[in-house]
Amino acid sequence: MSDNKNKVVVGIDLGGTGIKIGIVGKDYGLIAQTSIPTGAQRPYEEIIADMGKTAAALLEENGFEIKDCLGAGVGSPGTVDSSTGVVLYSNNIRWDNVPLAEELRKYLPVPVYVNNDANCAALGEVVKGAAKGCRNAAFLTLGTGVGGGIVIDGKIFEGGHPGGVELGHIRIRSDGRTCTCGRADCLEAYASASALIDDAKKMAEHHPESKLWELCGHDLENMNAKIPFDAAEAGDACGKTLVENYIEYLADGITDLANIFRPDIIVLGGGICAQGKKLTDPLNQYLKENCFGASIAYVPQVVIAQNGNDAGIIGAASLVPRKENQ
Amino acid sequence: MSDNKNKVVVGIDLGGTGIKIGIVGKDYGLIAQTSIPTGAQRPYEEIIADMGKTAAALLEENGFEIKDCLGAGVGSPGTVDSSTGVVLYSNNIRWDNVPLAEELRKYLPVPVYVNNDANCAALGEVVKGAAKGCRNAAFLTLGTGVGGGIVIDGKIFEGGHPGGVELGHIRIRSDGRTCTCGRADCLEAYASASALIDDAKKMAEHHPESKLWELCGHDLENMNAKIPFDAAEAGDACGKTLVENYIEYLADGITDLANIFRPDIIVLGGGICAQGKKLTDPLNQYLKENCFGASIAYVPQVVIAQNGNDAGIIGAASLVPRKENQ
Repeated sequence: MSDNKNKVVVGIDLGGTGIKIGIVGKDYGLIAQTSIPTGAQRPYEEIIADMGKTAAALLEENGFEIKDCLGAGVGSPGTVDSSTGVVLYSNNIRWDNVPLAEELRKYLPVPVYVNNDANCAALGEVVKGAAKGCRNAAFLTLGTGVGGGIVIDGKIFEGGHPGGVELGHIRIRSDGRTCTCGRADCLEAYASASALIDDAKKMAEHHPESKLWELCGHDLENMNAKIPFDAAEAGDACGKTLVENYIEYLADGITDLANIFRPDIIVLGGGICAQGKKLTDPLNQYLKENCFGASIAYVPQVVIAQNGNDAGIIGAASLVPRKENQ
Repeated sequence: MSDNKNKVVVGIDLGGTGIKIGIVGKDYGLIAQTSIPTGAQRPYEEIIADMGKTAAALLEENGFEIKDCLGAGVGSPGTVDSSTGVVLYSNNIRWDNVPLAEELRKYLPVPVYVNNDANCAALGEVVKGAAKGCRNAAFLTLGTGVGGGIVIDGKIFEGGHPGGVELGHIRIRSDGRTCTCGRADCLEAYASASALIDDAKKMAEHHPESKLWELCGHDLENMNAKIPFDAAEAGDACGKTLVENYIEYLADGITDLANIFRPDIIVLGGGICAQGKKLTDPLNQYLKENCFGASIAYVPQVVIAQNGNDAGIIGAASLVPRKENQ
């Protein structure tokens, strides 16, 4: 294990309910992984102790010593100061100024890098995934909220101060929809999976004839972000309208990102991306028609993320510099 | 003139009707300046020959030899490839793939740097102006259109490909206003001086009782962007509505920039900025209330640009690296 190429990094995906921990080798191959519950109600010291001890044990179980580990990366929800490794604020785990890197090093004595989870996922798709080989990429994750990450010149772009690159919180319309951030009409209020589910429930309430009812077993509590697409596929007018609107909302946000960052590629993540070309084909068409200077300037392609369930671990692991991958 | 500190740079502000040329010394002090008509209908070779000969003559008239000149910066409207000094496209001067840097060096044999004019203005405010001392700044110029520039770590941020940082072309509403870019509802369609003038004309047409009529001499052709502010100041209801709406539009764009770039400062330029605190006070209030994570994260201050009439020359000159200013 003395050859630098055989050294590993630890990737840690900190979530509100669970913590995924993985050992990642050369070319970001996943060697081993495990997960533990977050237990977010506990003091942060306990959570981080569990995280560090589990990671150290995973290394040992797989025959790695601490000296074989180049470092650990942690993707955290919320606002992170990556220069200090402090989680400034996270609504998901109710953290406030938590010195995550410093605490983790007590149990895992390696260099620790912390960044926002969507930023990590963006870099993860660049080092191994849909944006591999790209120097510049924009990434949107469509889930409960809309998270975003930007990679410029192969590095996570964070803006001038922590709290930048909140790509879910750019305003795209003026209908007056409240956003979780307190402002109205942010991209997240229209293009998150949660927003689509809310829209689908409202649509079903007004349309008892819609196939949406059958697909959710006649209980709106079963509504999910796949049902509108399935309804549209089956020819349901309500489903078609929902999907058309959703794609327009998303296209508006994506076009803004193209006009601002003009990246090589725009990568979409989150469960809703299982729709594949049903999402990307119309989005790419919209970009071709609406991107600023589309007839003469570079128009980025919209693609689906590839790291899937491992995205969190690979993204976090990608924070650790590895010479052979740079 | 052998002392590097006494060396000068040439700043050239290329506009649709005129070309301003200046010699800029230490600390971006303007030593001399002149201007020539663009004559935009001519072949680009002629325009650039005039530009270069005039700059060379200005240096000579002021006692500088070519060896005293560290380089020339040119701010051009449109989409520029700064890596090659080629103007890819400019609507204002109807240029298409013009090798500006290469042509200019025929007449002014110094290193030539070319960038978009709004990018130049942004950097100009950082090296000498409202953002002096800031590492990161966002700049919006409110004129016929809305131009934008971003400075990150003391350098112009250009995105991954030419045609990025089109900050006037982010969508802020969904009212259906056509934008000059072909897309609907861009910031430019609401927050440019032209948009305010259009709004004021429409408002006056619907309100014969408004003070707007008196202030434009009962001829809507005389409407300008100052009149709505003057009407509001005089207590006119239409003027107040126009100003309130305009500030809300602008605030929406600015909040997006804060959420994306989280810069140290946001600088506004353009004639409308003569309104000073009437613009910046409500904008700063809006940012404090609406910026993502405003209660815990850094909220940038909105200020008015300071380089005034010299902004174009100073901004262009700031493209030329000067060790003592870095």
